[in-house]
Amino acid sequence: MTTAPAHYTQLTTLLREAATLESVAQLLGWDQETYMPPAGAATRAEQSAALASLVHQRRTDPRIGDLIAACESDRSIVADADSPRARNVREARRAFDKATKLPSGLVAELARVGSQSQQVWKEAREKNDFAMFAPWLERMFSLSRRKAECYGVPQGGELYDALIDDYEPGARSADIERVFTPLADRLSTLVQELQDSGRAPSDAPTRVKIDAARQHEFGMFVIKALGFDTNAGRLDVTTHPFCSGIAPGDTRLTTRYREERFTDALYGTMHECGHGLYEQGLPKGEHFGEPLGDSISLGIHESQSRMWENFVGRSRPFWAWALPHAKRILGPALDQYSADDLYRAVNRSERSFIRVEADESTYNLHVMLRFGIERSLLRGDLAPRDVPGAWNERFERLLGVKVPDDRRGCLQDVHWSFGLIGYFPTYTLGNLHAAQMWEKIKTDLPSLETDMTRGEFAPLLCWLRTNVHAHGKRWRADELCTRITGKPLSADPLMRHLESKLRPIYGV
Amino acid sequence: MTTAPAHYTQLTTLLREAATLESVAQLLGWDQETYMPPAGAATRAEQSAALASLVHQRRTDPRIGDLIAACESDRSIVADADSPRARNVREARRAFDKATKLPSGLVAELARVGSQSQQVWKEAREKNDFAMFAPWLERMFSLSRRKAECYGVPQGGELYDALIDDYEPGARSADIERVFTPLADRLSTLVQELQDSGRAPSDAPTRVKIDAARQHEFGMFVIKALGFDTNAGRLDVTTHPFCSGIAPGDTRLTTRYREERFTDALYGTMHECGHGLYEQGLPKGEHFGEPLGDSISLGIHESQSRMWENFVGRSRPFWAWALPHAKRILGPALDQYSADDLYRAVNRSERSFIRVEADESTYNLHVMLRFGIERSLLRGDLAPRDVPGAWNERFERLLGVKVPDDRRGCLQDVHWSFGLIGYFPTYTLGNLHAAQMWEKIKTDLPSLETDMTRGEFAPLLCWLRTNVHAHGKRWRADELCTRITGKPLSADPLMRHLESKLRPIYGV
Repeated sequence: MTTAPAHYTQLTTLLREAATLESVAQLLGWDQETYMPPAGAATRAEQSAALASLVHQRRTDPRIGDLIAACESDRSIVADADSPRARNVREARRAFDKATKLPSGLVAELARVGSQSQQVWKEAREKNDFAMFAPWLERMFSLSRRKAECYGVPQGGELYDALIDDYEPGARSADIERVFTPLADRLSTLVQELQDSGRAPSDAPTRVKIDAARQHEFGMFVIKALGFDTNAGRLDVTTHPFCSGIAPGDTRLTTRYREERFTDALYGTMHECGHGLYEQGLPKGEHFGEPLGDSISLGIHESQSRMWENFVGRSRPFWAWALPHAKRILGPALDQYSADDLYRAVNRSERSFIRVEADESTYNLHVMLRFGIERSLLRGDLAPRDVPGAWNERFERLLGVKVPDDRRGCLQDVHWSFGLIGYFPTYTLGNLHAAQMWEKIKTDLPSLETDMTRGEFAPLLCWLRTNVHAHGKRWRADELCTRITGKPLSADPLMRHLESKLRPIYGV
Repeated sequence: MTTAPAHYTQLTTLLREAATLESVAQLLGWDQETYMPPAGAATRAEQSAALASLVHQRRTDPRIGDLIAACESDRSIVADADSPRARNVREARRAFDKATKLPSGLVAELARVGSQSQQVWKEAREKNDFAMFAPWLERMFSLSRRKAECYGVPQGGELYDALIDDYEPGARSADIERVFTPLADRLSTLVQELQDSGRAPSDAPTRVKIDAARQHEFGMFVIKALGFDTNAGRLDVTTHPFCSGIAPGDTRLTTRYREERFTDALYGTMHECGHGLYEQGLPKGEHFGEPLGDSISLGIHESQSRMWENFVGRSRPFWAWALPHAKRILGPALDQYSADDLYRAVNRSERSFIRVEADESTYNLHVMLRFGIERSLLRGDLAPRDVPGAWNERFERLLGVKVPDDRRGCLQDVHWSFGLIGYFPTYTLGNLHAAQMWEKIKTDLPSLETDMTRGEFAPLLCWLRTNVHAHGKRWRADELCTRITGKPLSADPLMRHLESKLRPIYGV
């Protein structure tokens, strides 16, 4: 590549400076969940607010706008619209415009009301009292509508798309709906069939009591085998597992241990490890703070976590490799079980009420329900007070069981309470991308299953590095999908994956 | 107190904002030593530099200067020069003037050269090669001389005092010398006498092998008993123990565990706990960022750490209380020993070469040696290349043994390599303040020893809270000493403490 023009270099320098401060804000968040003493909370809020305001200042610095404009009118940069530099400038423009479009009063109000609303939600969930939360839901949707209006309706889209765009750049809900609708029907049918078979595998192999220290040792063993670089990352314990790609060379995962079911922590850890492998694979050394050093979208991020969790971790080859190590590290509780026992146990399909506990076959039904409801809410087709009724009716239609109460229904997720609207669909987009990518990976790596049986995950990681991680935000999610698989995103690969795995297990 | 005028409130608000950012910088430092993955080091340097520059910007904000000036000419604030507000303004002025006096070029050069110099020092110490380090020592002293010149010679002092002032506001080396000189003579004589007695107590009770987990449990048990609030603080493991009073409600201690000598970690932990109790006792809730919420000086800080480490931890009442708990938590290795065995073992006087390993009777001799040398270096009376000769000659005079090599001599401490000049004397000032305060505490709390024998440390902590911690930086160190003890700082209390403890142990 030719030497970059001065305005391009200056732009990337300013972006890196903003990212450096943002990485400090991320560390504050990580510390708050891991090691901060409880009494530090009040000052932590001040510290975080101070950093957030500094980061916003840097991201909306008019010099960035001027430099982007200079780059946009520089033929040497934008002549080839698909070149890394042109894409870098295009995505920097998108981020700058979004950051400058929101009046700071609205940003502050969203943060303030969101924080109060989250407190109310917490109490309302505990008390199973939706009426208590309803006015706050209304306020958060009304503020979010104002936010969407500030962004403006994206070309060829609807107002809701302006919100999705924060998490899934360029996505349109009409496109999502086209994939989700057939998926919902086919999944409902499959889940019903599995239930009707009466041949659910036993989950006894996962219900063995193992202490947290051994689980941690096994988790560390697995993520190292998958390729997570512990010289550039770590694994800690928090109430809610997450992955924080804080900075170049510093990617932190968290998990939680339940003694009575070791697979919860194992899959939680593998899930976060998938996010972590993406973070470690991004070219942050060279492009920290630039779009080229950043992930594509939440959907693509989730495709990585779900791939390692489900396509690797819930496979037969994985257990063929992992079980002897599990027996060695976790102790004698697993002695009586075979790899096949484990494989079957971790693929049990169950119609449960809580999304975060849902298995692979039902999970997306939970997500699609939320997508439909939040879209109707934003359009005004559904009133906040009518959410419980709509939720319960749609839940029964999709999953065939009656929701017993709002705590296990529309009050279960934190997202809406602080304005994360347009976020849910990215969970299912992630599963779809993972499935579609996985079919291509199996073609490209004929020995994939044999490799995994031997605990060799490097070929898979190398494929992901080359085809996904190394490009940063150069391609949008739909472009990446077409470039890799030759086709737009579809429900077929995920259905093929689930049917070919679950039908034999259930003998249907 | 009357409502504060607007300029006073605005001043404290700006100071708090600067302190909030500085607390983030402190967290970065803590994380770097505790949990940061090694590969995160490069970005951590960028993050820290970014924060340091933001903090400096805030601290030198001309608005702060204007507001201080407005307060200084407001009779309602300064009429009573000793009132908390007047003192707050006086100390804010001192800090602002110091921050604005240094040209940013010099600050950057001190940081840059200091960082290189520290690397060279590390290698030179390993290789026992003083010649390698000599030119860097010369550069650091020359840069420090420029720094002192920017500050200016304090009234009634010498150039060196401008540097001490960073750590011990208002201290003058002539005053320090007046206390140190008789102390050096008397300590040398005492140490000689103890050695000559040939009746050193056995240190066998401290040389029992105990694993880190048990040591940690015991350390946590002790610091909680001393009064450290673990809801507002924590204890972790690092290579070099430290205490970081990060923010209100967030004070973090670190220690290190050597299996073969559990008392090293115990006293390291009690030492840092002493610093931590001071940090937790400062009125940061109300005065975070203001001088009134800050510690007085390094000397007073050290008086707190040394008091809990030595005056409490190396006392007979402490072991009378602690030993049964130690036996319970640390296991059977201690079964054969009595409280008196422990008391005698931890009070062994030894002429060793390394300051940080020195016992209570020899420690200050190590410090005073450094005070003399760095003062001569800054005056130009001693050339950097002549340091080893001067060091070894003075060491033998003070401690009666020959220094075998520079690694165990003038190359042992990191301080000079990155420009901490004027820092060493605060260690001994701390011991002197602790001893002088302790005599007053014993008068004020007649049941002190009985309390400690029962593990009741609350009366002592309460006394320190009331007389020291609660005042923040309202009083200078010498004022505090006179206010509390009625006398200026002297060598007598420390000598009385050491002689009355060590003579009986050695039977001299």
